[in-house]
Amino acid sequence: MDISQIDTPAAVVDLNLMQANILQMQQYMDEHGIANRPHIKTHKIPEIARLQVEAGAAGITCQKLTEAEIMAAAGIQDIFLPYNVLGESKLDRLMDLAHRATISVTADSDFVARGLSSAAVRSGIDLLVLVEFDSGLNRCGVQSPQEAAELARLIHRLPGLRFGGLMTYPSNENLDPFVRETKKNLQTDGIQVLCVSGGGTQSAREAHTYLEATEHRPGSYVYGDRYWLEHGVMPLETCALTVVSTIVSRPTPDRAILDAGSKSLSSDTMGLDGYGFIIEYPQAKIYNLNEEHGYVDVSACIQKPEIGERVRVIPNHCCAVSNLFNQIVGSRQDQVEVVWPVAARGAV
Amino acid sequence: MDISQIDTPAAVVDLNLMQANILQMQQYMDEHGIANRPHIKTHKIPEIARLQVEAGAAGITCQKLTEAEIMAAAGIQDIFLPYNVLGESKLDRLMDLAHRATISVTADSDFVARGLSSAAVRSGIDLLVLVEFDSGLNRCGVQSPQEAAELARLIHRLPGLRFGGLMTYPSNENLDPFVRETKKNLQTDGIQVLCVSGGGTQSAREAHTYLEATEHRPGSYVYGDRYWLEHGVMPLETCALTVVSTIVSRPTPDRAILDAGSKSLSSDTMGLDGYGFIIEYPQAKIYNLNEEHGYVDVSACIQKPEIGERVRVIPNHCCAVSNLFNQIVGSRQDQVEVVWPVAARGAV
Repeated sequence: MDISQIDTPAAVVDLNLMQANILQMQQYMDEHGIANRPHIKTHKIPEIARLQVEAGAAGITCQKLTEAEIMAAAGIQDIFLPYNVLGESKLDRLMDLAHRATISVTADSDFVARGLSSAAVRSGIDLLVLVEFDSGLNRCGVQSPQEAAELARLIHRLPGLRFGGLMTYPSNENLDPFVRETKKNLQTDGIQVLCVSGGGTQSAREAHTYLEATEHRPGSYVYGDRYWLEHGVMPLETCALTVVSTIVSRPTPDRAILDAGSKSLSSDTMGLDGYGFIIEYPQAKIYNLNEEHGYVDVSACIQKPEIGERVRVIPNHCCAVSNLFNQIVGSRQDQVEVVWPVAARGAV
Repeated sequence: MDISQIDTPAAVVDLNLMQANILQMQQYMDEHGIANRPHIKTHKIPEIARLQVEAGAAGITCQKLTEAEIMAAAGIQDIFLPYNVLGESKLDRLMDLAHRATISVTADSDFVARGLSSAAVRSGIDLLVLVEFDSGLNRCGVQSPQEAAELARLIHRLPGLRFGGLMTYPSNENLDPFVRETKKNLQTDGIQVLCVSGGGTQSAREAHTYLEATEHRPGSYVYGDRYWLEHGVMPLETCALTVVSTIVSRPTPDRAILDAGSKSLSSDTMGLDGYGFIIEYPQAKIYNLNEEHGYVDVSACIQKPEIGERVRVIPNHCCAVSNLFNQIVGSRQDQVEVVWPVAARGAV
């Protein structure tokens, strides 16, 4: 089927571009001896995770337990879950999962580590736990190498747990000093920091400059989006994901309305002006979104789009778009090759 | 099951509050002789649409064809689709739907009207079409009463179509003058404007002050959200939808991290500061979201939330939240009474 026959709005992935992105990232990681552990939150599709693993990834990263369950059920064997899992029900689910696949997690507090330990002991699991540290995002993570070392010692001591190393997001200039200081702090205890896991698509290309990092978790590189395009990280010809949309109204000479709104493009601005880049009309600006409508200012376009015309929009944030669509259309040379259900969509 | 046993984040609707919202709105519309046609984009759940119809709604409103298909398949009989439907495939789907349920649509251009006509003739359908006009939102809709009248005349003339009246969103002070001028313009043609359909939850309570409106399409009144709360339209005790979330990290004394991020609360700010209202910590501020993390500033809270604690968040925009969750938990007095799949979720 030709791509022009699918109803809009549709999320379409150019399979050639996506596969090139997967291979190039893997090649870079291989060249530098860094374990590649792509983050599947970008695509949420087991089939794409499998392509990443087949290309040489050491395993995958999931952000939520439900995502990990879905990926494991699809046969992905090695899953890192860099999230604080807590509460009896989720801990039981985590341990069930650890019986079926190789699972590692993170903790950034005693509370989380102790919960993991109790559940691991209850289930006869030997769980690998990394300490999450804050490299400057000011989100989760221990705040100092001293705290990191203290938590590492606790994890080392607690039954059912093995201390696996350190993890942060994103990789940046604070990574090496933090890790070195933590290692120094742990030296006298004889506790080894085997894995140092960094993350981010921007820093993926410079992962080899973080000398302490042994692993990297790139996410959005697989699809690309307007954020990486505008930041010069991924050029247009590597952006594999577009939202195909139809002009449904031209109420004034300068305004066009798309059938793609925040339910298709997401409200994520990522600090950018506007909500997406229209490939066919680079001068157009998607200046507002409602759920089912995209407002486009076409005043700067020499030729203006007409009602019924289709356009391809590179969204601001590809991961958010994946979470909106029930399915992703995989195309090659404008032919629909595959339609993948976004299996881990809504794994909140 | 007690609500405290469900895994977080979860979208929970207090059924008593929701049913009170449904009944109060219907009562108001009945008192004023206005047809109530609730917009199901807020909940996307056939069972709730049925409650609205059972309470006395004249029918429902859907924003997308796929939503309408799902609602019709669930037995909802009278559906208004105030959206420009175009393209052969969607027009065929629309006509199929019109064979199974009572369907009316809108158009705001010749292009859309002619497409509807061709498809209606092909399928032997007699389709009711309203003209959408722009009351000031600057989205879709014809721009002047003259344009409205001209399009009404075209619809009246085109085979397969019946002119149904006028539609706008939102209802405001421009509604009556626009409608009156259009009616005057159509007088000599003998074309009657039978239905004037207004919309919006804010204007729902003043729907009777728009003297020309015969019908109203309220949406978010069914759940309520922080937008209506902050604008004084729906007090806290009427907000039926909360996102139940767990504190998963307390990395600093002033920062708490929720397991609900933009995948649960949505990135919609609706012009508000922050991303939701935490009922248990009114002084707390959700100041940032990533997909799976909510950043909370708890510096102003006298007692601060602890790791593992659950909180209930009233989201900024209830419709966007419905579109993120695969299921909604219906509770009564903190007991889970029902779990509804969000059947029309992802009907982009």
